[in-house]
This record gives sequence, structure tokens and C-alpha cells, in this order.
Amino acid sequence: MKLAILAEGQFTPATAKTAIGVLRYAPFEVVAVVDSTRAGRDAAECVGVGAGVPVVATVDEAVARGATVLLIGTAAAGGRIPDGYRPALARALGRGVEVWNGLHERVLADSGLAAAAKRGAARVRELREPPGDLPIGGHRSRREGARVVLTVGSDAAVGKMTASLEIAAALRRAGETTEFVATGQTGIAIAGGGIAVDAVVADFIAGAAELMVCEAAERADWVVVEGQGSLTHPGFSGVTLGLLHGSAPDLMVLCHDSGRLSVKGYDEGLPLRSLRENIRIYEEAATWRRPPGYPRARVVAIALNTSALGDAFAQAMITAAANETGLPAADPIREGASGADRLARALREGVPV
Amino acid sequence: MKLAILAEGQFTPATAKTAIGVLRYAPFEVVAVVDSTRAGRDAAECVGVGAGVPVVATVDEAVARGATVLLIGTAAAGGRIPDGYRPALARALGRGVEVWNGLHERVLADSGLAAAAKRGAARVRELREPPGDLPIGGHRSRREGARVVLTVGSDAAVGKMTASLEIAAALRRAGETTEFVATGQTGIAIAGGGIAVDAVVADFIAGAAELMVCEAAERADWVVVEGQGSLTHPGFSGVTLGLLHGSAPDLMVLCHDSGRLSVKGYDEGLPLRSLRENIRIYEEAATWRRPPGYPRARVVAIALNTSALGDAFAQAMITAAANETGLPAADPIREGASGADRLARALREGVPV
Repeated sequence: MKLAILAEGQFTPATAKTAIGVLRYAPFEVVAVVDSTRAGRDAAECVGVGAGVPVVATVDEAVARGATVLLIGTAAAGGRIPDGYRPALARALGRGVEVWNGLHERVLADSGLAAAAKRGAARVRELREPPGDLPIGGHRSRREGARVVLTVGSDAAVGKMTASLEIAAALRRAGETTEFVATGQTGIAIAGGGIAVDAVVADFIAGAAELMVCEAAERADWVVVEGQGSLTHPGFSGVTLGLLHGSAPDLMVLCHDSGRLSVKGYDEGLPLRSLRENIRIYEEAATWRRPPGYPRARVVAIALNTSALGDAFAQAMITAAANETGLPAADPIREGASGADRLARALREGVPV
Repeated sequence: MKLAILAEGQFTPATAKTAIGVLRYAPFEVVAVVDSTRAGRDAAECVGVGAGVPVVATVDEAVARGATVLLIGTAAAGGRIPDGYRPALARALGRGVEVWNGLHERVLADSGLAAAAKRGAARVRELREPPGDLPIGGHRSRREGARVVLTVGSDAAVGKMTASLEIAAALRRAGETTEFVATGQTGIAIAGGGIAVDAVVADFIAGAAELMVCEAAERADWVVVEGQGSLTHPGFSGVTLGLLHGSAPDLMVLCHDSGRLSVKGYDEGLPLRSLRENIRIYEEAATWRRPPGYPRARVVAIALNTSALGDAFAQAMITAAANETGLPAADPIREGASGADRLARALREGVPV
């Protein structure tokens, strides 16, 4: 399987979150990114990852490079397929290229795209399509001894998936059996499985999380769950609380984008809370679904995304975060393995007794 | 339009929540309840409301009484259509009777029922089917001057819809223009509109609530929003927080079933929180989506459901709730209009300045 990523007109760090995640972590080959406005460049020039992956102008060029799958690589809030993407998607489907879609809108709901898929006998993989028959949360206990980590955030799109994958890798380096639980479309594309908890029928958010966590806990001592949204986000907080209660973590890692001052996509009227305030909010909300006397779920480390900052400022922000919270802080991308190892150490030392 | 209610084998106060709500509040005629295990009785003998509505054994008897619509009157967690209901539903559809369904499972997804509907040219109204194109929450402000009340609960199924309808009626008696916003299947059946927020794609919980509240605020000075679930419920808390943040109430009324000690449907390991603890939790969570300095959303009254208790004990619990919280408390069903008027007075006096 060889993948091309569609990011027409949007292949930038701010708008191509899915593309960047897949370029950084996917265990399969990415042969091209399709964005006619940036054709001829290298992916790494545009978004900082994907060195050696060319940006091309058309689906045909991607197919010429061997692409057998085209992934929609951007994800606007609301989840509509951008109209500008439809010609490229139709071309791919018409040529028999499988399309992977992580948006809420379904590819085959567009009659033109459905016709193209029929013409090309092409398949569509809906990354956000939930399984049928999900349970209501709260009725199943996971294997004792398994420890569950949830990444939580000061906002949506701060780097929770990235932190989760880096923490999982660091735990494995430390010799721990570890499962990553994907809860969003990019994580699912990377991991090859998972449930997009923001796309399930609302009654089943917690049940979907619990199902995934219980299954992962059968296979590993550490389960690292990709967080979604934020408890302080005006649109997505329900998903966040359902995921928090359904996954019922033992430990949490607070993720924050050090370049972010207010809720993404809203105006300056919604400033982000401080790290300490976020810790208090998540630890408080975690207690709500637990019987009295149950160990508190604690935030034990801070994962920062300092990608918007220069080196010296980034280092200062990492130090400031540690000072503010009294917890280990790291940017697992900027600092590389040593940063992720610091987060994993905090988790291994923070196992509740 | 004449309605029959299907509650086969389950027409009891504990299991027929939808039936009871519709019997109490529906603005149209209910001609029969179908439950062969209780046929021959009066509805009020079985569930305390619906005096004069007979319980019959078959759909045919309901049709003989003029039924043109059959409503599924029970709602188990998980939302499957009980297998024992399918023969009655098939019979109704085959005879051209419209079916109203508030469960998650869709009637026409059952091929046998789909065939019956085709045979009888019968329609199906899915009460929980959300509209397409819902927005993400947090992007729209409602008309200034409109006051929004949300009922919140110590658990699911404690009487939030009932309290909301009684409060809306009391506000109208006090001369206020008032809209009731239905957020669940029973409320939708009664009000003739609304969105079941537990059935929308999870990303859109807050957006659906915001949409309904903004529209209602154009038509009335008071908007009373039917709450769902509980922030402390292991399965439904995500829906509750999304609804809280999406509706962004000015004032809340805490609803509690005085006969309930632990979370319904779970075991005794999950005791309910105290009323004071619930007030603290809801007021705290409400602040998360608001910019600093915005008026706090306060819980200003307690609506109790004392239906499981005798008169003297019920009165003692109402007094105890008022003493514990320092807020007006009432059971708007047991106390009738005077109870609901007490809640409405607390709301009118509690308008934030």
C-alpha cells in the first residue's frame, strides 16, 4: 500500500493536522502530497516533516508515483468535505484509487463521488465511521494491573495525539508493554484501528472509550489513550468529558500549545486557562464518575507543543511550565526522545498505589 | 391524530418513562396503552397518570379505538427496540398506523418492519433523528435579554423533563413569554419539535443545543431547556456537559429523585452525590466555557421527584433539601402548581444582574 495525501490549497502547519500526523508516524510509505498551490516543493519545506516526500499538483502525478490510496489530509471544524477537494477525489476514485476520509461528511454521500467510485471500482474507507452496537459506558472493568494514561488538553488541536504516540514509544523503550488507543481520524489512519469518539452517537462516547481501553488492557500493561478536545472548549467539551469518564485514566498528561493564547477558532474573548487551572479542572472532573475513596486520577506531566516558538523561547516555556505546575514538562518533538522519556518517567513514577 | 402507546410487558412507573411523560403532557388524545400483561386496567392504575386511558392487549384493539399513531413508550439504556415489541410494530405498520420511535435503533433498519411499513403504506417518525448540518457550538450568541434556564440532575431519569415542563407552565402563569426546548425523545413527542442531543454525532452536542436555544430566544423572554443525564453519570456525562456548554444557561434548577441513592442502572458502588456537591459541580462546569468575568450560572432552586415516597416523608425530604442547600425546593408534581410556582419565583428573583 502506498499513500498520497490530499491537502489542496491547505498544506500548511496550521491547516494540515492529519497530513502532518500521518507523515510523521504512519508505518507505511507516503509517496506524495497533492496541493497544486505548492507543487514542486518538498513536504518538509511546507510543514516541517516528510523530507523526501514531493508535493505534486494532481492526483495523476501521485498515481504515477505509485499511490494506491488517497487520504484527505486536512480537517476543518464541522467536518465538511471542501468543495475544492471534490474534483481530485473524483479523479482518484475514477482511477480506482481507494480514498480514506476522516471528515464527518461521508464520501459516498456525494452522488458525483459515488458515481466515480463505481466507475473506478474504488473503495472508500471512512475513518470516522463508528462500529455498530456500541455499549453505554460504565458497565465494564478493565484488567487489574493495567495502567491507563489519557492525554488531556488546554484546547483542541494542541498535540494530544503526537504526545500520546511519543509517550507510547517512550514507554516501550523503557521495556513496558504498551498499546496506543486511537480516538480520532488521524490516529486511526496511523494505528490502523480505533474509534473516532467525536463521531459516535453522543450517548456512546464513554462506552466507545471504555470498549477500546478494556480491549487494549488485555494486551498491554500500559494503555495510552489519545485525548480529544478540551473540557473548556465551547464546542467539544462533551466529547472530552465522555472520553475522560469512559477511559477512566489512572494518570493524565496535560498537553498545551505554548504559542496558543485563546481557544482556536474562536476570538480573543475566550482566553485559555492557566496550566494549573487546567490540572485542577481535569482532576476534578475525573472524580465525578468514581465512587468515593477511589484513587484520584492525577495529572503527572505536561507535554508542550512549542512548534510556534524559537529555540530559546521554547526552552524558557518548558521551564516555566515545570515551575508553574511542579511537574515534569517536555516538548517530545522539539526535544526528541529525551523529552518523551521524561514524560514516561513521570508516568512510571506516578502509578497510583 | 389519536395516539396509542406501546409498552408491552413494561407499563410500570420504573420502565415506561416515555409513556408517562406523554400521558401527562401531550396536547393530543391518547386512546390506549398496549401491554397484554396488564390489559383491562386503567393507565392510572399502572403508572399513576392517564386516568380514563385503557390498557389493551393488542394493536388491533388500539386501532378499534381510533389510534392513527403508535408511540414506543419505553426506553431502555442502549436504545434497542425490544424483540417483544416487533410483532406489535409490524402489525401496526401493516395496518397503516404511523409509528413514532424514540429509541436509537431505527424502525426501518429491521427488514421485517420495513416490509410491513411498505405493505401498509405506513410512515415512521424517528424522534431521535437529528437534522443534518448541525453547527459546532460556541459561535452564536443569543438575543440579549432572553434568560435561559437548564434543568440539571443528580442522575439520569430523575424528572428533568417534567420539572422543565412544569417550570415553563409556571413562568407562563406568571405572565412571562416562555419556550420549552425539548432535548430528548419524550420531550420531542410532547412538544412536536426539538433535537435529541444524545443522538447527534458527538461533535455537535453543544451546537445542537445552542441552535435550539438561540431560536427559542427569538420568540420568548424565558427559555427552559430540558436537561439530559448527569455530569456524574459514567455513561452519559459527555452529553450533559455538551448540553450545559451549548445551552449556556443563566440559571439552573437541580433535579433529584428523593428515592434514589445510587446511579440508576449501576450498582451500589456508585452512590449519588449530595445536593450541595451537585450544585458545586454544575456551577463549576458551567464556568469552563465562559470568558473570565462573565456572570456565573447559578443553581437557584431544587426540583425534587418524591414519587417513590409517602406524603409525610416526601414533605420532610423537600424541607431537608431546602435546608441543605439554602434554596427553594419543590416537587412540582406532588405539590401541583404551587410547587412549580415556587421554582419559577426563584428563577424570576434569581435573574443575574
